[in-house]
Amino acid sequence: MAHLNSHYLKLKAGYLFPEIGRRVKAFTEANPAAAARLIRCGIGDVTEPLPAAAREAMHGAIADLGQRETFHGYGPEGGYEFLRHAIAKSDYRSRGIEISDDEVFVSDGSKCDCANVLDIFGNDNRIAVMDPVYPVYVDTNVMAGHTGPAEESGVYGGLLYLPCTPENGFMPEVPGEPVDLVYLCSPNNPTGAVATRERLAEWVEFARRHDAVILYDAAYEAYISGPDIPHSIYEIPGSRKCAIEFRSFSKNGGFTGVRCAFTVMPKELECRATNGEKFPLHPLWNRRFSTKFNGVSYVTQRGAEALYSEEGKAQVSALVSHYMENARILREAVAASGLDVYGGVNAPYIWVRGPKGITSWEIFDRLLQEQHIVVTPGSGFGRSGEGYFRISAFNSRANAAEAVQRFSAIKW
Amino acid sequence: MAHLNSHYLKLKAGYLFPEIGRRVKAFTEANPAAAARLIRCGIGDVTEPLPAAAREAMHGAIADLGQRETFHGYGPEGGYEFLRHAIAKSDYRSRGIEISDDEVFVSDGSKCDCANVLDIFGNDNRIAVMDPVYPVYVDTNVMAGHTGPAEESGVYGGLLYLPCTPENGFMPEVPGEPVDLVYLCSPNNPTGAVATRERLAEWVEFARRHDAVILYDAAYEAYISGPDIPHSIYEIPGSRKCAIEFRSFSKNGGFTGVRCAFTVMPKELECRATNGEKFPLHPLWNRRFSTKFNGVSYVTQRGAEALYSEEGKAQVSALVSHYMENARILREAVAASGLDVYGGVNAPYIWVRGPKGITSWEIFDRLLQEQHIVVTPGSGFGRSGEGYFRISAFNSRANAAEAVQRFSAIKW
Repeated sequence: MAHLNSHYLKLKAGYLFPEIGRRVKAFTEANPAAAARLIRCGIGDVTEPLPAAAREAMHGAIADLGQRETFHGYGPEGGYEFLRHAIAKSDYRSRGIEISDDEVFVSDGSKCDCANVLDIFGNDNRIAVMDPVYPVYVDTNVMAGHTGPAEESGVYGGLLYLPCTPENGFMPEVPGEPVDLVYLCSPNNPTGAVATRERLAEWVEFARRHDAVILYDAAYEAYISGPDIPHSIYEIPGSRKCAIEFRSFSKNGGFTGVRCAFTVMPKELECRATNGEKFPLHPLWNRRFSTKFNGVSYVTQRGAEALYSEEGKAQVSALVSHYMENARILREAVAASGLDVYGGVNAPYIWVRGPKGITSWEIFDRLLQEQHIVVTPGSGFGRSGEGYFRISAFNSRANAAEAVQRFSAIKW
Repeated sequence: MAHLNSHYLKLKAGYLFPEIGRRVKAFTEANPAAAARLIRCGIGDVTEPLPAAAREAMHGAIADLGQRETFHGYGPEGGYEFLRHAIAKSDYRSRGIEISDDEVFVSDGSKCDCANVLDIFGNDNRIAVMDPVYPVYVDTNVMAGHTGPAEESGVYGGLLYLPCTPENGFMPEVPGEPVDLVYLCSPNNPTGAVATRERLAEWVEFARRHDAVILYDAAYEAYISGPDIPHSIYEIPGSRKCAIEFRSFSKNGGFTGVRCAFTVMPKELECRATNGEKFPLHPLWNRRFSTKFNGVSYVTQRGAEALYSEEGKAQVSALVSHYMENARILREAVAASGLDVYGGVNAPYIWVRGPKGITSWEIFDRLLQEQHIVVTPGSGFGRSGEGYFRISAFNSRANAAEAVQRFSAIKW
């Protein structure tokens, strides 16, 4: 008699974004007139055209596939050398960080990578997450059986939640107890906060001291504007022995629909087997790729490579500037309306503390119904997000400007 | 102190195809002159240009991404409705099989699907595999901790291996003991055998009787030529309650480098939780998709959709005919050389029993060194593959014809 994975039954009703989708759908079906006015500042999805350099390279790649001489079938599971090299060189070595090409693993998304990386770890690790937290970190641990059932508050027993508050700049201090795996996300989704060099150094020191591994999600790296903010955890000495970094082309190159990301797995990073012996993780991650994955589309990889050309870099830079100008005007409008506003400077997300005594979902519903704006309720990211909401700056300028008007019109 | 997944350490030295790659590389580096003559009949990778219909649709999709009005960001995790509908309608409903659009989950490959499906099952299932076996079925179960260590023979304790031999037509009879999950692959990789309607009906009856689940890998469905061979397990009454089907665009549309496949998860299929209660698997699979995956590239999905147009169908049919003509001439040449030959009629693989007393890897090395032909050693697929080798028909006609000459020249 086949058994299912009963841990799935612990998961709460819905992953956050499908739940938002359901509420928006219900509202627009009941109010067809409002549907046309809807401005989506909810899900962090890009809106602007794919950079021309990427499109041109992808057209070329499709032409390659049209001729036997240049046809590409199965590629290397971890990515084509041309892309691994472009990544390691441009994102790391040219910034003085030693990452070899084969420490880069090209995938179809950071969400997948953050989820899949758990495969190579044991089931007995003590796991810490930031709170508020990108739900994928938590839900994948629930699915893997690393937690107890959900409590009334939505918190899962067995995880250590690290509160992120205005007091710690939404970047947690190291805990007073050991943990084995910790997810750090900077620039942060949802708070828009960034880890300072000092804070990251504390975490690296903590991880080295406890033989812990930092899962460092830097999917929004391109949005860092502060000159002193680290772009990679590998800027911190010692981090090659304790950190895995996740990056994505979703938000810099507008690849949310094209699907390309990568993981950096340093060869020095070791963990213990159940027999106590230490082994490097790199061969395990490589084995996972070759056994459970078949590589990213050749067309996509050529598109990603083109983002590193001079033309591509300029187009990425223009895209980022566009969204960050949206962030600036939205941030200023909401701040002017009297609410406490965070983020939006080194990240495309603005994190807003709503008026006292109103829940995140109440704010969500009010903004949807009164202003026809979709935001993301902070409580969807965990207990410490209650009372907050997230505004995404991914929009056309016209939509962002219209949203500014509507936010300004609200009497909180 | 972080622990790794110690089950990975049970895996044998290498996944089959990387090991072949290593031997070929060593040989060609030592014999540069032979490198130019090399004919690859090893890995089952397509060689012919991507169908024009798919390329045209993909060019159009890239153009869509170049304009804000037609831009596509995150898509539905389980696939765009346009593709799920085309699949359910063309591959199933038009053949009299009731599959709804939302029972189709579009992914980036059948290898990934076969691996990922284990996520939604518990860790206490008794698992059966065909022997010889596509290594991914075994290795992913090893990684998930469902086996003991590898024995000297390469067999892993805890799995039930179902011998596939000439006597049973390389399609196993149902076992005399209950199992919970069974992998069936038809048309089979590596043997090229197909399951008859009667054999499949026995398996469905077995699965219903034992509340077991059949993981039915039909990635090579397009190569079925026999009029009475089922194209889908859902042609068998009762199978919607006990079977998950995997299909791919890799081998019909030549998508090995483009990456698109799908799973059919019927809503009637239920399994027991640890508390004994039955739940449908469909919501679990849906949850896995939305939490651990972000959908397949929009460009790729438009390409896959185009394979269902009239033009696309004709091009797929021509591709399949091309490879099957290769299969025919290769099959006949090897049979004429005096070896026992199987498959190659309903599948692009020819399964050959080598001369007595020679191992599969010895045959591999001899063919590589003497004839500069790469095949796949049968023992790489498990104990029952020892002494056999697999010839892939995926090649240009010129290469296939040349391989025919070389196979004919061998004095076994």
